[in-house]
Parts: sequence; structure tokens; C-alpha cells
Amino acid sequence: METVNCDVLVIGGGPAGGVCATTAKMNYPDKEILVIREFEVQLVPCAIPYIFGETLGCSDKDVASCGKADKLNISKIVGKVEKIDTEKKVAYTSSHEITFDKVVFATGSTPFVHSSLQDSLAFEGVFTVPKNKTLIDKSRAYIEKVNDVLVVGTGFIGIEMAMEFSESGKNVTVIGGSKHILKGPFDPEVAIQAEEIMLSHGITFIGNDRVDAVIDHNGDNIVKGVRLKSGKIVDTQAVILATGYKPNSGLAEKSGLRIGHYGGIEVNEYMQTENPDIFAVGDCSARRGFILNAPSKVMLASTSAAEGRVAGSSLYGFKYIKGFNGTIAIFSTMVGTMAFASAGITETDALAANGDIVVGTFTCTNRHPATIPGAQKQFVKLVALRNGGQIIGGQIIGGNEAGEMINIIGVMIEANLSIYKVMSFQVATQPMLTSAPTNYPIIMAATMIAQKIEHGE
Amino acid sequence: METVNCDVLVIGGGPAGGVCATTAKMNYPDKEILVIREFEVQLVPCAIPYIFGETLGCSDKDVASCGKADKLNISKIVGKVEKIDTEKKVAYTSSHEITFDKVVFATGSTPFVHSSLQDSLAFEGVFTVPKNKTLIDKSRAYIEKVNDVLVVGTGFIGIEMAMEFSESGKNVTVIGGSKHILKGPFDPEVAIQAEEIMLSHGITFIGNDRVDAVIDHNGDNIVKGVRLKSGKIVDTQAVILATGYKPNSGLAEKSGLRIGHYGGIEVNEYMQTENPDIFAVGDCSARRGFILNAPSKVMLASTSAAEGRVAGSSLYGFKYIKGFNGTIAIFSTMVGTMAFASAGITETDALAANGDIVVGTFTCTNRHPATIPGAQKQFVKLVALRNGGQIIGGQIIGGNEAGEMINIIGVMIEANLSIYKVMSFQVATQPMLTSAPTNYPIIMAATMIAQKIEHGE
Repeated sequence: METVNCDVLVIGGGPAGGVCATTAKMNYPDKEILVIREFEVQLVPCAIPYIFGETLGCSDKDVASCGKADKLNISKIVGKVEKIDTEKKVAYTSSHEITFDKVVFATGSTPFVHSSLQDSLAFEGVFTVPKNKTLIDKSRAYIEKVNDVLVVGTGFIGIEMAMEFSESGKNVTVIGGSKHILKGPFDPEVAIQAEEIMLSHGITFIGNDRVDAVIDHNGDNIVKGVRLKSGKIVDTQAVILATGYKPNSGLAEKSGLRIGHYGGIEVNEYMQTENPDIFAVGDCSARRGFILNAPSKVMLASTSAAEGRVAGSSLYGFKYIKGFNGTIAIFSTMVGTMAFASAGITETDALAANGDIVVGTFTCTNRHPATIPGAQKQFVKLVALRNGGQIIGGQIIGGNEAGEMINIIGVMIEANLSIYKVMSFQVATQPMLTSAPTNYPIIMAATMIAQKIEHGE
Repeated sequence: METVNCDVLVIGGGPAGGVCATTAKMNYPDKEILVIREFEVQLVPCAIPYIFGETLGCSDKDVASCGKADKLNISKIVGKVEKIDTEKKVAYTSSHEITFDKVVFATGSTPFVHSSLQDSLAFEGVFTVPKNKTLIDKSRAYIEKVNDVLVVGTGFIGIEMAMEFSESGKNVTVIGGSKHILKGPFDPEVAIQAEEIMLSHGITFIGNDRVDAVIDHNGDNIVKGVRLKSGKIVDTQAVILATGYKPNSGLAEKSGLRIGHYGGIEVNEYMQTENPDIFAVGDCSARRGFILNAPSKVMLASTSAAEGRVAGSSLYGFKYIKGFNGTIAIFSTMVGTMAFASAGITETDALAANGDIVVGTFTCTNRHPATIPGAQKQFVKLVALRNGGQIIGGQIIGGNEAGEMINIIGVMIEANLSIYKVMSFQVATQPMLTSAPTNYPIIMAATMIAQKIEHGE
């Protein structure tokens, strides 16, 4: 049993833990920062789907770099914390006793599987999507040898994987509980466009249904297909359960920390638990949405990294006021050659909460004039409050540039800007890079909202 | 002489006039809006360089659409206003008498040519870059037949044209008065990277010099070359004078309006002249910079469109508070396969004004992990005030996405955000579309500034 002393112990080396450690070292250069993580090699979580197709092709191309942490002299131990004595401030692994002054839980999340399907995980050919290189390599090797793959779940991980499988020539079926794919971040009329691209790639989609059971060949424990709630049987050679993630908060619970909604560790605005020396960041923490402050299941590396930055500069007292109030669920994905991006609340969710909102949309091309080679359609939808016009949500369809355009809307939401402020903003436009200055779609969508509010629509 | 009556007369159909007219119609649907413009066919100004190379290849592909104006029932006359009686509220063309209630000058700008070179414009083979299809077609046809082209001016129009000529296989020389190209929007270490790409395409660059005279073949008035201030002679078959633009404010001056710095029409915050019924928007108006409120020569369609929106909703009293205070000079361009973008003040200009500023830079890749096909370098530089950390400028080098990323920085500047607010913002990141959430360069550059301020650097 080796004893190690540090000032700040960060448990977990994913986006939240990594950013927290480097931020802490920059803010407190004299403190000894130690990151303990389970794996020597850590995957970049959001690129895991691309391991399964031609895009990356193997997990060795999806390894997170530790360059910055090494350069900043942050210590690292590979191991698993099994117990924490929060009074004595000691963490125990099978080989180390680590003393600390502050500890940050950044233990991440593990795949969520519905209780009715837990037993199916023992079947050969049934996989989840864990952030674990060894397990991902195993599923990749298995799926490489089969033709038929079934993806359960229509979130972005499920859809990105389905597209990668399809592009590798496999016969792909996607099963989802909702009518359309990508239901969380997109309103139906936007989601449908992603769905149509998916269908045009030959993927079969079964919505409004769910998997009741995985079936094997007469007890051989090798997957043969699935039985849906509707009674339908779908044959397949492999099943990917991309049905979300749950906070990895077991260690925190054992340590006496308060566990909140959806299993996340309860924290205050500065990611601090009830114990002022204990913090939690990333997927393992309990999150709230930015508008209604209601519990949120959203797990995104962008939020995790932001939380890591907040905690990393608040360990010894607060330095800056946190720039966001709950997760704004800002995210983007590619479906075929189109990018789909979303930030904040959708029209559907805002109306479900009885929000007095107004939406504005605008369609243009992402280059100007439209004769510029490679120009494609660009669509922006904004959601704003009728009273005051504050922007609370946005969705974009476009080319690659939509991935950064959504961050323009993100800043508008996080800075509490109204459509009235935005309408006269100056935006850079260039023929090869953007839509026309006269038709810049974020400004035009804001203008449409202003018109509707003025005319009482 | 035909008499036409309207409520709002907009003189000019470029970005400022077009946006002003459509905004006015949306805000005042009952008013008769009339646009008068000189040409039946109007070019998209920012794409003019692409007419000269393979990208567009001809001016017919660079025609501005009037779809929206037609749909909104905005009237149009092709003609030139020669006189305005501001008391009687009548504008006169050679064929029309137009009565109005409000008039908006959106008369744009024409190429600026240094007085010493005015006479050279009569030479065959010497061209400016006017927003005039007939003249552009003429210069394009001439240049198509020659091998050697010389571009005078290192602003973005000059550089974009030089690159298009070079990609068409021509032998290109660029002459500039400053040490490096693109001096206005970029600090030297950024500009040098654009310059290196230009040089790697085989373009010759002569900086810190200027054209003293254009030379012909013993009085035949056909360009043979140029003599530089340094005494150097450069042979060429065609000369493009891309030396900026000047406001087209002659008609306004004749109408008794006050002309301000650099020849622009003086306006207040809502683009209104001293006469409450007369407005001016776009390149013909006098502009100021957003920080020091000093006169600015910057002419960008983005600012023009923003001004058009402000005037279009302020003709009959103000409705919204203008979202910007002077031009933030937000712009982007492509040099080869790299995008260069800038917003706000550069470090060079801020220091020249004795600004107490701190800069932060960050370099990463524009995809994550860096193994994603097509990933390339991304660089962000931010300029902030030491006291309070307000963001006042930014520069980006990257792929296509930089064209929209600069608008993120633009919103931060226009919303008066500080690096402290920005540091904990959530940003959408996706392997195929953006850099990593842990290393998002705008946030990292802000973090670098916070560190420098904290450590008194």
C-alpha cells in the first residue's frame, strides 16, 4: 500500500475531470493536483461512434491526449478509488492511500439499460456503448463480422452509430420509443429532415415502439433478434443498446454524499457538495435545465467541460461568477452531409411547459450567391419569450458551419440576449464561408419573431 | 416626365438599401416603399473577386436576387437620382419626379484611386473594382487574355482577386504600402500566415512600397508596367487598383446634407441625418469604430446590412435600441484552403491607442480527435481590457468553420461580454464539426487572458 499526498484529488480523467485538473493547476499553481483514472488509455467519448465505421476505423485513433496535463505537471495514477474517508480526507484504491485537501468527483456515466433488458446483456452479440476501449474493441470486432445490426435508441449516439454501420455496408435497423429520431434536441419538422437522410441511406426505422426482449436461437444465448412491444419480431445478428447513460455516483453515495434526481451527485452553483471540500463535475453530477431549473438528464461533454472549469477555479473560494445557469443542452451532429445542431429549449418542450413563446424560422443557402460551388441549404429556428423577446432556444440545419453557428445562438442564450438586441448585430459574411449579409438566418429568424410579436401573432 | 409618389424612397439597391427597404416594409406594411437603383442587374459585391477565377467564372453567377423585395411588394425603378428638393420632398431623375415622405441614401461607394494615379485610369489594361457588372465584364474579358497581372492593394478584395488570378494560372504580383498583407484586420503574426499561403501559390509580394506611376509603351496608352516609389520597375500586362472605396455622397452633399470624416454622410445613432426625414445607410454614411468612437474607413456589407435594419425600423420613430455602437469591423476571407477572420480591434491598433489590454491565444485542431479526416489547425486570438476583461477583439485562422466562429466573438463584443463570463460558457462540440470541448479555443484564449491578468502579466 503506497501513500500519496496531494492537495486536490480529481477522480476521473474524462472531459470534466481533465478540464477541472488543468483549470485548477492554472488557478492554483502551487497546489499538487492528482488525477486518478481507471484506464491508462482514455477514449474521446463523443467520437466513439466513428470507431465503428470508415471515419476513424479503430479505437486507437480515438485516444484522448494528456499533453496539457503533463505539461502543467499534473500527477496521474491509474486505478480505481474504492473508498473515501471524507473526515480523514483519504481515498483508497487497491494499491494506494491518497490523502487530499479537496476532492472532485468526475466519475462520469455508464450506459443505462432498461431493467427488462438487463438479462439480455449476457447474450452474445448484445452491446452497450461504454467509454471503455477494451469493451468497444470487443463490440467492434464482433460487429465487423456480421451483416445485420439493430440499434436501440434514437439519440445522437444511436443515430451516429447507425449511420457509420450503414456506411460500412451493413443492414441497419433503428428502434425508438418516439415517433421521430433525435426527439430531445429537435422539434419534429427538424428531426424529420435528419430522419429522411437516415432513411435515404437505406436504414430501417421503427418508431413509437420499444424492445421488450432479446431473442436467442433456442437457448444458445446468441442474439437472433428482438421482440418489440408491438409484437413485431425483428431478426438481427447484433444489438446495440444506445439508450442513454446514468451517473456513476455509487462511490459518492457510499461516501455519504447526497444523491439527487436521476442519480446525480447534488451540487450547488459552483459544483460544490454539502461538504465544502468535495465537488462533483460532469455526468456524475445532478443537472438542471437553464430555464425552468428542472432536473435534466442531458449529458454533454460541453456542459461537463464548463463544469470542470467552474469547479477548477472555485476550489478555494469563488473567483468568477458562473456564466450559465443550468445546462443549455447545446449540441451538434452530422447526419450524412448535413449538420444538425440545437441549443436551449425546443418549441415542443417550451409549449409543454406552457411557455408564452414565439418562434421564427428562416431558410437560405450557406454561401452567397447560391452559385458558389458546394452551397447547400441552411435553416435556422429561434425560440424566444413573447415578453421581452429573450432568446431561449435555437435549431440549425446546414453544412459543417452549423457546428459553430449553434455556438452563436448558445452565447445569445447564455448572455440573456433578446431578439431586439440581436436584430441589429453585425455579422461577418463571406461568399465562400457564410450566407449573405442581407439574409443572415439568425438575424432574419429574430426579425421574424419581432414581427410576430408586434402583430400579435 | 413621369410622377411617382411613395412614402419611403430608398436610393440604392445594394446590401444597405435592400435590407433597409425590406425591413421598412415589414415594420410599416401600409407604407409605399420605393427603391431606385442605377442598374437593372446588381452584383453581389463581396463575391466580385470570384468572378475573375474558376470559383464563379462569370458575372452572371454573381447577381443579387430581389426575390424578397418583390414578394413584399416593394416598388423598384431603375434610374439615377440627379437632384433632390429636400423642402418639397421630391427626387428627380432624367425621367421621373418622385415625391416621398422619408428618403434613405444608400448610394454606396466607388473605388478610391490615389490622385497620383487618376490619369493612369485612362490607360488600356488599368482597372478598378467597381460594383458595376458592365465594367467588371470588361476587365474580366481583358485580363482573361493576358498572363501577367499586378494587383495594387493588400486588403481582402486585392488578396482574393490575386488568389483567383493565380488559380487561373496567371503570373501575379501584389504591391502593398505596408509590410504585410491584410494589415487592417490582422496582427502581423496572423497576417504573415495568410501571406505565406499566398506566396506558396507562386504570387510575388512587394510590401512597404507603392505605385508612383503606371508606364505605357512610349505613349501608346497601353499598360506596360508600373514604377514603384522605391524606383523599382515591375512589368505587367494588367493592373488592378484595389486600393479601397470612398463614399458616394455627392448627391447628398448637393442636397445640403452635412458630410463628415472620410466623405461619408453624417448620421446619428439611428442613421438619421440632421433632417429627421432623411437617413443614410451603408458605405455612403460616415462611420465610427466601436471602441474609441473615432472615424472609421471600414466598409463591410455586414455593417451596411445592420445599418439598413436599424434605419428600416426607425423611419417613423425608434422601435429598438441599436445593438451596436459603431462598426466592429467583423469580417472573414479565404486564402487557399484556410479561412482568416477578424472582429473588433487588433492588438496592434489597441496598443497604438495606448489601450491597457491583454491578449490570449490558443492553437488546436478544428476537429476532435485530430485523427478525424480533414482536421486542420485552428488558432484563436482574443484582445481584452485588463480592467474588467471586456472582449474587444478577436482573430481566427481555421477551416471553413472560422467564418461562423468569428460571429461568436462578434456577439461577445457586441454584447459587452467579459472573458470571465465567457470562460464558463457551454459550447457545442462534435468530432466532425469542431475542436474538443476540453480545448475549445475561444474559451481557452479567454482563460489565458484571465491567467495573465491574475498574475499581473
